Amino acid sequence: RIGWISNIIVVVSPENIETMKSIIEKYGHKRVMIAQGGITRHRSIFNGLKVFAENKFSSHLLQKPEVVIIHDAVRPFVEEDILSKVVMAAKEHGAAGAIRPLVSTVIASAADGSLDHSLERSRYRASEMPQAFLFDIIYEAYQQCTDYDLDYGTECLHLALKYCKTNAKLVDGPADLWKVTYKRDLYAAESIIKDNLSQQVCLITDVKEAVAQVGVLLHESLKNQIKVEAISSGSLSINDSHLQNIFSGQCYNFICINDKKYDIQETQQLVDMLEKSNIPLLYPVVLISVHLDISENISFCIGMEELTRMKKFAREVKKKNILVYSLLIQYKTKVPPQGLKSVHLGYPHGVTIMDGGVGPYWSLMK
Amino acid sequence: RIGWISNIIVVVSPENIETMKSIIEKYGHKRVMIAQGGITRHRSIFNGLKVFAENKFSSHLLQKPEVVIIHDAVRPFVEEDILSKVVMAAKEHGAAGAIRPLVSTVIASAADGSLDHSLERSRYRASEMPQAFLFDIIYEAYQQCTDYDLDYGTECLHLALKYCKTNAKLVDGPADLWKVTYKRDLYAAESIIKDNLSQQVCLITDVKEAVAQVGVLLHESLKNQIKVEAISSGSLSINDSHLQNIFSGQCYNFICINDKKYDIQETQQLVDMLEKSNIPLLYPVVLISVHLDISENISFCIGMEELTRMKKFAREVKKKNILVYSLLIQYKTKVPPQGLKSVHLGYPHGVTIMDGGVGPYWSLMK
Repeated sequence: RIGWISNIIVVVSPENIETMKSIIEKYGHKRVMIAQGGITRHRSIFNGLKVFAENKFSSHLLQKPEVVIIHDAVRPFVEEDILSKVVMAAKEHGAAGAIRPLVSTVIASAADGSLDHSLERSRYRASEMPQAFLFDIIYEAYQQCTDYDLDYGTECLHLALKYCKTNAKLVDGPADLWKVTYKRDLYAAESIIKDNLSQQVCLITDVKEAVAQVGVLLHESLKNQIKVEAISSGSLSINDSHLQNIFSGQCYNFICINDKKYDIQETQQLVDMLEKSNIPLLYPVVLISVHLDISENISFCIGMEELTRMKKFAREVKKKNILVYSLLIQYKTKVPPQGLKSVHLGYPHGVTIMDGGVGPYWSLMK
Repeated sequence: RIGWISNIIVVVSPENIETMKSIIEKYGHKRVMIAQGGITRHRSIFNGLKVFAENKFSSHLLQKPEVVIIHDAVRPFVEEDILSKVVMAAKEHGAAGAIRPLVSTVIASAADGSLDHSLERSRYRASEMPQAFLFDIIYEAYQQCTDYDLDYGTECLHLALKYCKTNAKLVDGPADLWKVTYKRDLYAAESIIKDNLSQQVCLITDVKEAVAQVGVLLHESLKNQIKVEAISSGSLSINDSHLQNIFSGQCYNFICINDKKYDIQETQQLVDMLEKSNIPLLYPVVLISVHLDISENISFCIGMEELTRMKKFAREVKKKNILVYSLLIQYKTKVPPQGLKSVHLGYPHGVTIMDGGVGPYWSLMK
């Protein structure tokens, strides 16, 4: 993801090494090496650093870097900006770490479990990750430190200070750096990912009047909430540069509107193009196929055969991490239905999206 | 909720007093009084305490309590257990507060923004809420403290120590006491509420073979995940003691299974009973009406009239915070469908539940 990082060492406990290897292979990660974890945080980090300095940890010794970044996997939302800031500060000061304001007051307890004193909150900060160091400084610190440090310590900045007299530069980090610790943090992390995936939607309509009109209305009602790209179904070609831009712009949501009741041709076409594009399907793509039914029928019938075909299609593409949903909107007048306004898009709120891709999902709105 | 708390003072900023009054009225909260907040945390708490000591803050002076609990509204998941623990400890020690282990190391920064020193994480704790005090101690402390304390301090335990020489007893609190601070914390809070609401489901079936069989299968597949109560539709009477127990046992999820394709009679009956019961509908009740269709029809038709009727019904009861969903399960053989296993219940995962009660929602599973 970040070009200027030359090697990534993932320190993994022995029992998870095979799993990690398969993840690296599955997603085609380059520049990644695995080192075996130790029984404490500091011992694990030390093992990671040794990959650059000792031969026994890998078949070939990696070139020793000038600066090394230390990060926790439990802080998944680390952006290039903060990485770059700690690296630049480490180059200048020898060591640097991200910090955040304290959320609660910190207190010291006495031996009997009562309050000894409380710290003035504004003078203290929570030490977060990432941290960056001149390699020679942090490696020297780990070589010098005692078994007590390795077993009970947790703070790398402290080692650099204690053993190399290096006062780390503290850099304000963003709130998303928090440590995923409790079950509730998993929910929070999920919601952040979903939020990120719901920033953009691509509307695909054809030129027919009713269809185009619904497309325009949907565009209008969505554009204040998320970024909306609109293309014509005629542009559904891998050579179309607008579509290519949309694909490469991390768009994970597509809505195809047509008036062919059971037609999955456009949806199929889009799925094909998503596969041919180089979008990493790490996160699911959501594809909502909206079928407008403007017939005057008093009742609504779906043949089992069409239904089976659509469900089979959805089940197939789900394996590729593409979730297809079908939405049938039926209305009797020529005016596009008011009910359309209640189609919420975006992950956390989406009527159609939470379905999990079990199969096409038919909803009637009026 | 907790009988031994005699008065609750809610300290509210002037612009939110009317909103708070309407909330108190809407949910029929007893024992609750409003005090006007100050411009800092300590000034607000002091205003709350004055209600018991000075006449000008209310028409009648409340009786001075022996022990007062101080809590933050941003920590919504406070249980009786920790409240009781801090109160008992405050009775004995004069002051007590909930604490949690530190998640990150705490560091002190120097004036130039570099690391001064880091604290040994195991010696320190995060000070959380609730805290409890002998009223005389904390009120004395607030009366003694300086404007600087009132404007810049945040820690009540510190005031009790500084002005009344009272070393608070520190009590380990549960993880759910965390402070809802960032947007992600709102998602986490939502997920905790949903988890709590998803602990129990009540299955209502009649005695017909196919229906009872589906009920038994669903019971089997759910019982390892959540608490399942099963009752017969014949027991849908407000006088039925089993049903009364279910209502009073904080059950928020009901599944009615029948083989009458468009029948909402049972659902209506259940809604009536929920209204007559004393369940506070603070959280939504979810009612899933499952219609089994065992006919041999090759296609599936829903008359617009039935559909309109069901949607209207769902829209009406939604106003009462009861979300009604309809699920049609169609199968051709006499064996209950395997697909039923994929009906997930419970809030965060529920196919049917995330719909938000827009109207009945028909899903075909096979």
